[in-house]
Amino acid sequence: MSPAPWRSPLASTLERNPHSTARYVQLATVGANNRPGNRTVVFRGFIVDSDQLKFVIDARSQKVAQIKQQPWAEACWYFPETREQFRLSGSLTLVQADYSDLALQQARQTTWQELSNATRIQYTWPNPGEARSDAAAFEQLAPDPVEPLPHFCLLLLEPVQVDHLELRGEPQNRWIYYRGSDQSWSTQAINP
Amino acid sequence: MSPAPWRSPLASTLERNPHSTARYVQLATVGANNRPGNRTVVFRGFIVDSDQLKFVIDARSQKVAQIKQQPWAEACWYFPETREQFRLSGSLTLVQADYSDLALQQARQTTWQELSNATRIQYTWPNPGEARSDAAAFEQLAPDPVEPLPHFCLLLLEPVQVDHLELRGEPQNRWIYYRGSDQSWSTQAINP
Repeated sequence: MSPAPWRSPLASTLERNPHSTARYVQLATVGANNRPGNRTVVFRGFIVDSDQLKFVIDARSQKVAQIKQQPWAEACWYFPETREQFRLSGSLTLVQADYSDLALQQARQTTWQELSNATRIQYTWPNPGEARSDAAAFEQLAPDPVEPLPHFCLLLLEPVQVDHLELRGEPQNRWIYYRGSDQSWSTQAINP
Repeated sequence: MSPAPWRSPLASTLERNPHSTARYVQLATVGANNRPGNRTVVFRGFIVDSDQLKFVIDARSQKVAQIKQQPWAEACWYFPETREQFRLSGSLTLVQADYSDLALQQARQTTWQELSNATRIQYTWPNPGEARSDAAAFEQLAPDPVEPLPHFCLLLLEPVQVDHLELRGEPQNRWIYYRGSDQSWSTQAINP
Protein backbone atom coordinates (compact mmCIF):
# COMPACT_ATOMS: atom_id res chain seq x y z
CA MET A 1 0.00 0.00 0.00
CA SER A 2 1.39 3.41 -0.87
CA PRO A 3 0.92 6.06 1.82
CA ALA A 4 -1.83 8.69 1.53
CA PRO A 5 -0.76 11.98 -0.13
CA TRP A 6 -0.98 13.94 3.17
CA ARG A 7 1.68 11.71 4.75
CA SER A 8 4.58 13.42 3.05
CA PRO A 9 3.65 17.02 4.10
CA LEU A 10 2.92 15.77 7.64
CA ALA A 11 6.28 13.98 7.82
CA SER A 12 8.07 17.07 6.62
CA THR A 13 6.23 19.24 9.19
CA LEU A 14 7.17 16.81 11.98
CA GLU A 15 10.79 16.99 10.86
CA ARG A 16 10.75 20.79 11.06
CA ASN A 17 9.14 20.69 14.53
CA PRO A 18 11.53 18.47 16.48
CA HIS A 19 10.35 19.32 20.02
CA SER A 20 8.53 16.52 21.80
CA THR A 21 5.49 18.76 22.41
CA ALA A 22 5.03 18.92 18.62
CA ARG A 23 3.65 15.38 19.06
CA TYR A 24 0.77 16.63 21.22
CA VAL A 25 -2.54 16.49 19.39
CA GLN A 26 -6.05 17.54 20.48
CA LEU A 27 -8.52 14.74 19.84
CA ALA A 28 -12.24 15.60 19.64
CA THR A 29 -14.97 12.98 20.01
CA VAL A 30 -18.73 13.14 20.61
CA GLY A 31 -20.39 11.94 23.82
CA ALA A 32 -23.74 10.17 24.27
CA ASN A 33 -25.33 13.57 25.03
CA ASN A 34 -24.24 14.84 21.58
CA ARG A 35 -21.70 17.13 23.21
CA PRO A 36 -18.06 17.20 22.15
CA GLY A 37 -15.13 16.07 24.26
CA ASN A 38 -11.62 17.35 23.52
CA ARG A 39 -8.32 16.40 25.13
CA THR A 40 -4.59 16.34 24.44
CA VAL A 41 -3.08 13.01 23.41
CA VAL A 42 0.43 12.08 22.28
CA PHE A 43 1.03 10.91 18.71
CA ARG A 44 2.91 7.58 18.84
CA GLY A 45 3.63 7.08 15.13
CA PHE A 46 1.79 5.09 12.48
CA ILE A 47 0.83 1.44 12.24
CA VAL A 48 3.30 -0.05 9.73
CA ASP A 49 2.05 -0.11 6.11
CA SER A 50 -1.05 1.92 6.96
CA ASP A 51 -2.22 5.52 7.46
CA GLN A 52 -3.48 4.81 11.00
CA LEU A 53 -2.17 7.15 13.69
CA LYS A 54 -1.39 5.55 17.05
CA PHE A 55 -2.36 6.97 20.45
CA VAL A 56 -2.63 5.26 23.84
CA ILE A 57 -5.45 5.63 26.34
CA ASP A 58 -6.70 4.14 29.58
CA ALA A 59 -9.83 1.97 29.26
CA ARG A 60 -10.98 3.41 32.60
CA SER A 61 -11.21 6.96 31.18
CA GLN A 62 -14.49 8.57 30.11
CA LYS A 63 -13.54 8.85 26.45
CA VAL A 64 -13.60 5.07 25.97
CA ALA A 65 -17.39 4.95 26.43
CA GLN A 66 -17.71 7.92 24.04
CA ILE A 67 -15.61 6.20 21.40
CA LYS A 68 -17.57 2.93 21.62
CA GLN A 69 -20.81 4.84 21.03
CA GLN A 70 -19.52 7.13 18.26
CA PRO A 71 -16.09 6.23 16.81
CA TRP A 72 -15.83 9.37 14.66
CA ALA A 73 -13.12 11.82 15.69
CA GLU A 74 -11.25 14.89 14.53
CA ALA A 75 -7.68 15.45 15.61
CA CYS A 76 -6.42 19.04 15.53
CA TRP A 77 -2.66 19.24 15.35
CA TYR A 78 -1.05 22.65 15.60
CA PHE A 79 2.68 23.16 15.04
CA PRO A 80 3.77 26.46 16.60
CA GLU A 81 7.30 26.45 15.17
CA THR A 82 6.24 26.32 11.53
CA ARG A 83 2.73 27.76 12.11
CA GLU A 84 0.86 24.89 10.45
CA GLN A 85 -2.32 23.07 11.33
CA PHE A 86 -3.45 19.59 10.31
CA ARG A 87 -7.04 18.55 10.99
CA LEU A 88 -7.45 14.80 10.57
CA SER A 89 -10.91 13.40 10.59
CA GLY A 90 -11.87 9.74 10.51
CA SER A 91 -12.92 6.82 12.61
CA LEU A 92 -11.24 5.42 15.71
CA THR A 93 -10.40 1.81 16.49
CA LEU A 94 -9.97 0.82 20.11
CA VAL A 95 -7.51 -2.06 20.49
CA GLN A 96 -8.14 -3.56 23.91
CA ALA A 97 -6.72 -6.73 25.47
CA ASP A 98 -9.30 -8.96 23.73
CA TYR A 99 -9.07 -7.43 20.24
CA SER A 100 -9.59 -9.99 17.46
CA ASP A 101 -6.90 -8.95 14.93
CA LEU A 102 -3.58 -10.51 15.90
CA ALA A 103 -1.38 -7.95 14.14
CA LEU A 104 -3.07 -5.13 16.09
CA GLN A 105 -2.82 -7.16 19.31
CA GLN A 106 0.90 -7.29 18.63
CA ALA A 107 0.98 -3.54 17.91
CA ARG A 108 -0.72 -2.92 21.27
CA GLN A 109 2.00 -4.92 23.01
CA THR A 110 4.87 -3.23 21.13
CA THR A 111 3.44 0.22 21.84
CA TRP A 112 3.31 -0.59 25.58
CA GLN A 113 6.94 -1.74 25.46
CA GLU A 114 7.98 1.52 23.76
CA LEU A 115 6.41 3.76 26.45
CA SER A 116 8.58 5.33 29.12
CA ASN A 117 8.39 3.91 32.65
CA ALA A 118 6.84 7.21 33.77
CA THR A 119 3.99 6.76 31.29
CA ARG A 120 3.46 3.05 32.04
CA ILE A 121 3.23 3.69 35.78
CA GLN A 122 0.22 5.98 35.22
CA TYR A 123 -1.78 2.87 34.38
CA THR A 124 -1.28 1.66 37.97
CA TRP A 125 -2.88 4.82 39.40
CA PRO A 126 -6.39 4.77 40.86
CA ASN A 127 -9.42 5.31 38.59
CA PRO A 128 -9.04 8.54 36.58
CA GLY A 129 -11.77 11.15 37.13
CA GLU A 130 -12.82 9.82 40.53
CA ALA A 131 -12.42 11.78 43.78
CA ARG A 132 -8.72 12.19 44.54
CA SER A 133 -7.26 9.12 46.25
CA ASP A 134 -4.72 9.16 49.09
CA ALA A 135 -1.09 9.64 48.09
CA ALA A 136 -0.44 6.00 48.99
CA ALA A 137 -2.75 4.83 46.19
CA PHE A 138 -0.34 6.37 43.67
CA GLU A 139 2.72 4.62 45.08
CA GLN A 140 2.63 1.46 43.02
CA LEU A 141 5.48 -0.64 41.70
CA ALA A 142 6.33 -0.12 38.03
CA PRO A 143 4.23 -2.50 35.93
CA ASP A 144 5.67 -5.26 33.73
CA PRO A 145 7.39 -3.49 30.80
CA VAL A 146 6.59 -6.41 28.46
CA GLU A 147 2.98 -7.42 29.09
CA PRO A 148 0.49 -4.49 29.06
CA LEU A 149 -1.93 -3.98 31.93
CA PRO A 150 -5.48 -5.06 30.96
CA HIS A 151 -6.91 -1.53 30.75
CA PHE A 152 -4.12 -0.27 28.48
CA CYS A 153 -5.62 0.51 25.05
CA LEU A 154 -4.07 1.29 21.74
CA LEU A 155 -6.21 3.85 19.92
CA LEU A 156 -6.02 4.17 16.14
CA LEU A 157 -7.26 7.02 13.97
CA GLU A 158 -7.74 6.29 10.27
CA PRO A 159 -8.28 9.66 8.52
CA VAL A 160 -10.64 9.97 5.56
CA GLN A 161 -10.15 13.72 5.34
CA VAL A 162 -7.16 15.91 6.14
CA ASP A 163 -7.15 19.70 6.10
CA HIS A 164 -3.67 21.25 6.03
CA LEU A 165 -3.25 24.98 6.71
CA GLU A 166 0.01 26.89 6.40
CA LEU A 167 -0.35 30.22 8.21
CA ARG A 168 3.03 31.38 6.92
CA GLY A 169 1.98 31.58 3.27
CA GLU A 170 1.46 34.96 1.62
CA PRO A 171 -1.50 34.69 1.74
CA GLN A 172 -1.93 31.51 3.78
CA ASN A 173 -2.00 28.15 1.99
CA ARG A 174 -4.54 25.44 2.57
CA TRP A 175 -5.15 22.03 1.06
CA ILE A 176 -7.83 19.44 1.57
CA TYR A 177 -7.20 15.72 1.09
CA TYR A 178 -10.15 13.36 0.99
CA ARG A 179 -10.58 9.66 0.43
CA GLY A 180 -13.30 8.59 -1.99
CA SER A 181 -15.52 5.51 -1.75
CA ASP A 182 -12.99 3.65 -3.96
CA GLN A 183 -10.36 4.37 -1.24
CA SER A 184 -8.34 6.62 -3.55
CA TRP A 185 -7.27 10.07 -2.37
CA SER A 186 -7.95 13.44 -3.97
CA THR A 187 -6.17 16.70 -3.16
CA GLN A 188 -7.45 20.23 -3.67
CA ALA A 189 -5.98 23.65 -2.91
CA ILE A 190 -8.66 25.68 -1.12
CA ASN A 191 -9.05 29.19 0.27
CA PRO A 192 -7.72 29.61 3.82
CA MET B 1 -20.44 39.18 39.79
CA SER B 2 -17.42 37.47 41.28
CA PRO B 3 -15.39 35.44 38.79
CA ALA B 4 -15.70 31.63 38.69
CA PRO B 5 -13.13 29.74 40.83
CA TRP B 6 -11.23 28.44 37.76
CA ARG B 7 -10.46 32.00 36.63
CA SER B 8 -7.65 32.51 39.11
CA PRO B 9 -5.68 29.30 38.20
CA LEU B 10 -6.21 30.06 34.49
CA ALA B 11 -4.96 33.64 34.92
CA SER B 12 -1.90 32.41 36.78
CA THR B 13 -1.19 29.82 34.06
CA LEU B 14 -1.50 32.50 31.36
CA GLU B 15 0.96 34.66 33.27
CA ARG B 16 3.48 31.82 33.41
CA ASN B 17 3.05 31.15 29.66
CA PRO B 18 3.73 34.56 28.12
CA HIS B 19 4.28 33.44 24.49
CA SER B 20 1.54 34.46 22.09
CA THR B 21 1.00 30.84 21.01
CA ALA B 22 -0.10 30.08 24.59
CA ARG B 23 -3.34 31.83 23.55
CA TYR B 24 -4.06 29.20 20.89
CA VAL B 25 -6.92 26.94 21.92
CA GLN B 26 -8.48 23.93 20.15
CA LEU B 27 -12.23 24.30 19.94
CA ALA B 28 -14.37 21.19 19.37
CA THR B 29 -17.96 21.35 18.15
CA VAL B 30 -20.41 18.79 16.73
CA GLY B 31 -21.65 18.86 13.13
CA ALA B 32 -25.10 17.99 11.78
CA ASN B 33 -23.81 14.49 10.97
CA ASN B 34 -22.98 13.97 14.68
CA ARG B 35 -19.27 14.09 13.87
CA PRO B 36 -16.88 16.36 15.74
CA GLY B 37 -15.06 19.35 14.27
CA ASN B 38 -11.89 20.66 15.91
CA ARG B 39 -9.78 23.69 15.02
CA THR B 40 -7.32 26.15 16.52
CA VAL B 41 -8.70 29.53 17.58
CA VAL B 42 -7.07 32.44 19.39
CA PHE B 43 -8.23 33.41 22.89
CA ARG B 44 -9.09 37.14 22.90
CA GLY B 45 -9.75 37.66 26.60
CA PHE B 46 -12.98 37.67 28.59
CA ILE B 47 -16.13 39.74 28.27
CA VAL B 48 -15.94 42.25 31.14
CA ASP B 49 -17.71 41.15 34.36
CA SER B 50 -18.38 37.67 32.99
CA ASP B 51 -16.72 34.26 32.56
CA GLN B 52 -17.26 34.25 28.79
CA LEU B 53 -14.18 33.63 26.68
CA LYS B 54 -13.90 35.62 23.46
CA PHE B 55 -12.86 34.24 20.07
CA VAL B 56 -13.41 35.62 16.57
CA ILE B 57 -14.61 33.70 13.54
CA ASP B 58 -15.75 34.26 9.98
CA ALA B 59 -19.49 33.75 9.38
CA ARG B 60 -18.59 32.22 6.01
CA SER B 61 -16.72 29.32 7.65
CA GLN B 62 -18.23 25.84 8.10
CA LYS B 63 -18.22 25.94 11.88
CA VAL B 64 -20.87 28.66 11.99
CA ALA B 65 -23.55 26.28 10.67
CA GLN B 66 -22.35 23.65 13.18
CA ILE B 67 -22.61 26.10 16.06
CA LYS B 68 -26.10 27.24 15.11
CA GLN B 69 -27.29 23.63 15.11
CA GLN B 70 -25.50 22.54 18.29
CA PRO B 71 -23.98 25.34 20.40
CA TRP B 72 -22.20 23.01 22.81
CA ALA B 73 -18.40 23.06 22.65
CA GLU B 74 -15.30 21.92 24.48
CA ALA B 75 -12.14 23.97 24.30
CA CYS B 76 -8.88 22.14 24.99
CA TRP B 77 -6.10 24.46 26.03
CA TYR B 78 -2.64 23.02 26.48
CA PHE B 79 0.23 25.06 27.91
CA PRO B 80 3.55 23.48 26.93
CA GLU B 81 5.73 25.69 29.13
CA THR B 82 4.05 24.75 32.42
CA ARG B 83 2.65 21.42 31.16
CA GLU B 84 -0.96 22.16 32.09
CA GLN B 85 -4.25 21.49 30.35
CA PHE B 86 -7.60 23.22 30.78
CA ARG B 87 -10.68 21.68 29.21
CA LEU B 88 -13.55 24.16 29.17
CA SER B 89 -16.94 22.90 28.24
CA GLY B 90 -20.08 24.97 27.80
CA SER B 91 -22.27 26.63 25.25
CA LEU B 92 -21.32 29.07 22.51
CA THR B 93 -22.92 32.39 21.62
CA LEU B 94 -22.45 33.72 18.12
CA VAL B 95 -22.51 37.53 18.05
CA GLN B 96 -23.17 38.53 14.45
CA ALA B 97 -23.90 41.97 13.00
CA ASP B 98 -27.62 41.75 13.87
CA TYR B 99 -27.25 40.45 17.45
CA SER B 100 -29.94 41.77 19.80
CA ASP B 101 -27.94 42.55 22.96
CA LEU B 102 -26.37 45.99 22.65
CA ALA B 103 -23.51 45.40 25.08
CA LEU B 104 -22.41 42.36 23.05
CA GLN B 105 -22.83 44.32 19.81
CA GLN B 106 -20.44 46.82 21.32
CA ALA B 107 -18.04 44.02 22.36
CA ARG B 108 -18.07 42.74 18.77
CA GLN B 109 -17.06 46.17 17.54
CA THR B 110 -14.33 46.66 20.15
CA THR B 111 -12.91 43.22 19.44
CA TRP B 112 -12.68 44.07 15.73
CA GLN B 113 -10.87 47.30 16.57
CA GLU B 114 -8.38 45.43 18.75
CA LEU B 115 -7.40 42.97 15.99
CA SER B 116 -4.19 43.47 14.03
CA ASN B 117 -4.44 44.70 10.45
CA ALA B 118 -3.12 41.33 9.29
CA THR B 119 -6.02 39.55 11.00
CA ARG B 120 -8.68 42.01 9.83
CA ILE B 121 -7.55 41.71 6.22
CA GLN B 122 -8.32 37.97 6.27
CA TYR B 123 -11.99 38.88 6.34
CA THR B 124 -11.62 40.43 2.87
CA TRP B 125 -10.33 37.16 1.40
CA PRO B 126 -12.55 35.00 -0.83
CA ASN B 127 -14.86 32.38 0.73
CA PRO B 128 -12.90 30.05 3.03
CA GLY B 129 -12.99 26.35 2.13
CA GLU B 130 -13.84 26.92 -1.54
CA ALA B 131 -11.51 26.05 -4.42
CA ARG B 132 -8.44 28.26 -4.27
CA SER B 133 -9.02 31.65 -5.86
CA ASP B 134 -6.54 33.54 -8.03
CA ALA B 135 -3.86 35.51 -6.20
CA ALA B 136 -5.63 38.74 -7.25
CA ALA B 137 -8.69 37.82 -5.15
CA PHE B 138 -6.52 38.06 -2.03
CA GLU B 139 -5.18 41.51 -2.85
CA GLN B 140 -7.81 43.62 -1.16
CA LEU B 141 -7.47 46.95 0.59
CA ALA B 142 -7.34 46.80 4.38
CA PRO B 143 -10.91 47.00 5.75
CA ASP B 144 -12.21 49.80 7.96
CA PRO B 145 -10.49 49.39 11.35
CA VAL B 146 -13.54 50.80 13.18
CA GLU B 147 -16.64 49.23 11.63
CA PRO B 148 -16.47 45.39 11.38
CA LEU B 149 -17.19 43.66 8.08
CA PRO B 150 -20.67 42.03 8.11
CA HIS B 151 -19.38 38.43 8.30
CA PHE B 152 -17.10 39.15 11.25
CA CYS B 153 -18.42 37.25 14.30
CA LEU B 154 -17.56 37.44 17.92
CA LEU B 155 -17.81 33.94 19.43
CA LEU B 156 -18.32 33.50 23.17
CA LEU B 157 -17.82 30.36 25.24
CA GLU B 158 -19.47 30.27 28.65
CA PRO B 159 -18.05 27.26 30.51
CA VAL B 160 -20.18 25.19 32.88
CA GLN B 161 -17.40 22.69 33.54
CA VAL B 162 -13.63 23.14 33.64
CA ASP B 163 -11.12 20.32 34.02
CA HIS B 164 -7.63 21.47 35.02
CA LEU B 165 -4.70 19.04 34.79
CA GLU B 166 -1.17 19.74 36.01
CA LEU B 167 1.19 17.20 34.47
CA ARG B 168 4.09 18.46 36.58
CA GLY B 169 2.64 17.28 39.90
CA GLU B 170 4.13 14.28 41.67
CA PRO B 171 1.87 12.53 40.87
CA GLN B 172 -0.09 14.81 38.51
CA ASN B 173 -2.78 17.09 39.94
CA ARG B 174 -6.26 17.47 38.55
CA TRP B 175 -9.31 19.47 39.57
CA ILE B 176 -12.81 19.66 38.25
CA TYR B 177 -14.95 22.80 38.51
CA TYR B 178 -18.64 22.59 37.72
CA ARG B 179 -21.53 24.99 37.83
CA GLY B 180 -24.73 23.78 39.47
CA SER B 181 -28.29 24.60 38.46
CA ASP B 182 -28.25 27.47 41.02
CA GLN B 183 -25.27 28.92 39.03
CA SER B 184 -22.86 28.37 41.94
CA TRP B 185 -19.54 26.64 41.33
CA SER B 186 -18.14 23.53 43.04
CA THR B 187 -14.54 22.37 42.95
CA GLN B 188 -13.23 18.87 43.47
CA ALA B 189 -9.74 17.36 43.37
CA ILE B 190 -9.88 14.23 41.21
CA ASN B 191 -7.52 11.51 40.08
CA PRO B 192 -5.46 12.40 36.99
